[in-house]
Amino acid sequence: MPLIQVKQTPGKTAEQKAELVRELTDAYVRATGAKPESVWVTVQEIAADSWSVGGDTLAARAAQR
Amino acid sequence: MPLIQVKQTPGKTAEQKAELVRELTDAYVRATGAKPESVWVTVQEIAADSWSVGGDTLAARAAQR
Amino acid sequence: MPLIQVKQTPGKTAEQKAELVRELTDAYVRATGAKPESVWVTVQEIAADSWSVGGDTLAARAAQR
Amino acid sequence: MPLIQVKQTPGKTAEQKAELVRELTDAYVRATGAKPESVWVTVQEIAADSWSVGGDTLAARAAQR
Amino acid sequence: MPLIQVKQTPGKTAEQKAELVRELTDAYVRATGAKPESVWVTVQEIAADSWSVGGDTLAARAAQR
Amino acid sequence: MPLIQVKQTPGKTAEQKAELVRELTDAYVRATGAKPESVWVTVQEIAADSWSVGGDTLAARAAQR
Repeated sequence: MPLIQVKQTPGKTAEQKAELVRELTDAYVRATGAKPESVWVTVQEIAADSWSVGGDTLAARAAQR
Repeated sequence: MPLIQVKQTPGKTAEQKAELVRELTDAYVRATGAKPESVWVTVQEIAADSWSVGGDTLAARAAQR
Repeated sequence: MPLIQVKQTPGKTAEQKAELVRELTDAYVRATGAKPESVWVTVQEIAADSWSVGGDTLAARAAQR
Repeated sequence: MPLIQVKQTPGKTAEQKAELVRELTDAYVRATGAKPESVWVTVQEIAADSWSVGGDTLAARAAQR
Repeated sequence: MPLIQVKQTPGKTAEQKAELVRELTDAYVRATGAKPESVWVTVQEIAADSWSVGGDTLAARAAQR
Repeated sequence: MPLIQVKQTPGKTAEQKAELVRELTDAYVRATGAKPESVWVTVQEIAADSWSVGGDTLAARAAQR
């Protein structure tokens, strides 16, 4: 009953999310032998002003480039 | 100091959420004897295109029916 | 496909956990009309020295009483 | 590689979030000696009708005052 | 800066976990084009008496077979 | 009612954890003006063989040095 919870920045289309959850599920099944039907994936978006690395938001980092 | 974090698909009204957090809190108190005031519940919505079971999003599953 | 993730302090028996997940599932079903089979609950223990309220760990608070 | 995941109620500006993630990162570094660059912080907002204490949502509590 | 947080039942070796995080990272990169170095994966084990589906713990379900 | 959930690798003493939760709580209060008593912090340890960056576990990275 594995559970895979993803956080990522916004900007993916529904098609890209569908591809992502499919790839992650297949990866889990390949690595562990779990039944696909037992794998749950949730995807949550965190805005670039709400995610920081080293104390700087991703929004601030993007603005500095 | 129990913490109950819920993820569910969208579509619940504020009244339904209020009922849900009340029910979950009461259930926790009943099962464990905790003080109600010590119980926190958070509810987060995950869209149907961002939740998958067996590699298919809930949106895709609903569309197939 | 609701997901209920609980964090609590240690000290519950397996029987108490079984009772807890049953109560939480029933509460969710009552409040929302979801199918029981669709409800996942995970329970994770956080030690009293790893949980704080107001900056004091639960371990420190217990010692002060 | 510490990960700090914050849930809070809405209403903070981007500037306040930037200040918050900076402060939390600095606090982590001060307490542990970790390298700042290794610290990730994510901030997620939970609406007042989706967070409860003692079974009452924060929205209901605010309305009662 | 994607973050992938996995919950699964115990019983995997360190080698299996290493394979799992490699597969999940590769899957994320394939689906999104992210840089591998930006992908974090954490794996957490939830015991079979602390995970329920439909109100029954996985431990209880295994015992019924 | 902010909630701060930390994941870090093992090896901190109870004193270091107490210092950490104190620092994080103070940082949150400084940045937002929240009441200290409203701030919860949980700390969870993720072993070095269960955390990966770029597909390599922290255990594997440490071994390569």
